[in-house]
Amino acid sequence: MNIGRHLIIECQGQHAHLSEKELERLLVSAAKAGSASVLQAYFHPFGTGKGITGVVLLAESHMTVHTWPEHNYAAFDVFMCGDCRPLRAADVITSACAGAVTSVQAIDRGLPFNAMTLSADFPTYHTQFDPLYVG
Amino acid sequence: MNIGRHLIIECQGQHAHLSEKELERLLVSAAKAGSASVLQAYFHPFGTGKGITGVVLLAESHMTVHTWPEHNYAAFDVFMCGDCRPLRAADVITSACAGAVTSVQAIDRGLPFNAMTLSADFPTYHTQFDPLYVG
Repeated sequence: MNIGRHLIIECQGQHAHLSEKELERLLVSAAKAGSASVLQAYFHPFGTGKGITGVVLLAESHMTVHTWPEHNYAAFDVFMCGDCRPLRAADVITSACAGAVTSVQAIDRGLPFNAMTLSADFPTYHTQFDPLYVG
Repeated sequence: MNIGRHLIIECQGQHAHLSEKELERLLVSAAKAGSASVLQAYFHPFGTGKGITGVVLLAESHMTVHTWPEHNYAAFDVFMCGDCRPLRAADVITSACAGAVTSVQAIDRGLPFNAMTLSADFPTYHTQFDPLYVG
């Protein structure tokens, strides 16, 4: 029984330097692209030059972002259940900043418990991992 | 550069039937066990007999839960950066309900991008996956 797909999205580049408002707009756009409904959005900036942490709670699970501008790194996740299209949401996120190096890994949530896989159907600009993990 | 550890936690059993308040108490306890600081907690119940979705945003990233009582299934994740102890938080979550079947997978977030691994240092009651993924 597959409940939904949980995507782990890594971004190196400009994503790490987006403002609180830009990140909120990006995640809300991504939710829309994935056909998900936003219940609540909450973003917290840690101060000038520091990172931002945020969550968009969905009727179909959640999306989060945490940024480390000092490391040029942003960590996203997208978990959508039901008939949503989480990979479309991920595509909005990874393509938001030109020149970013991005990676998407997917885990199918539900029963029986599933191990992590790469999203083979995802655009080719994401980083490839060790083939051991491709499954 | 390792930023933090992101745990994917699957639970089959009583976790799926906890109330909104019980889930909030559980996640706040787990945050404390992991030495993390709660910024905001938001929980949304979908109605009698239906699931609950919730997030605890941390100064050190986030924890979420989504339950499907009709499937006896609850999906958690714990992402903690810095000096936090996410496996201690996971231990609080997985041990909260007697008889539950649980699984914890870990991904180390940061640069370079890392693939998913099992948490070899986690208690033995979690489900084992295909050894291909143990790394």
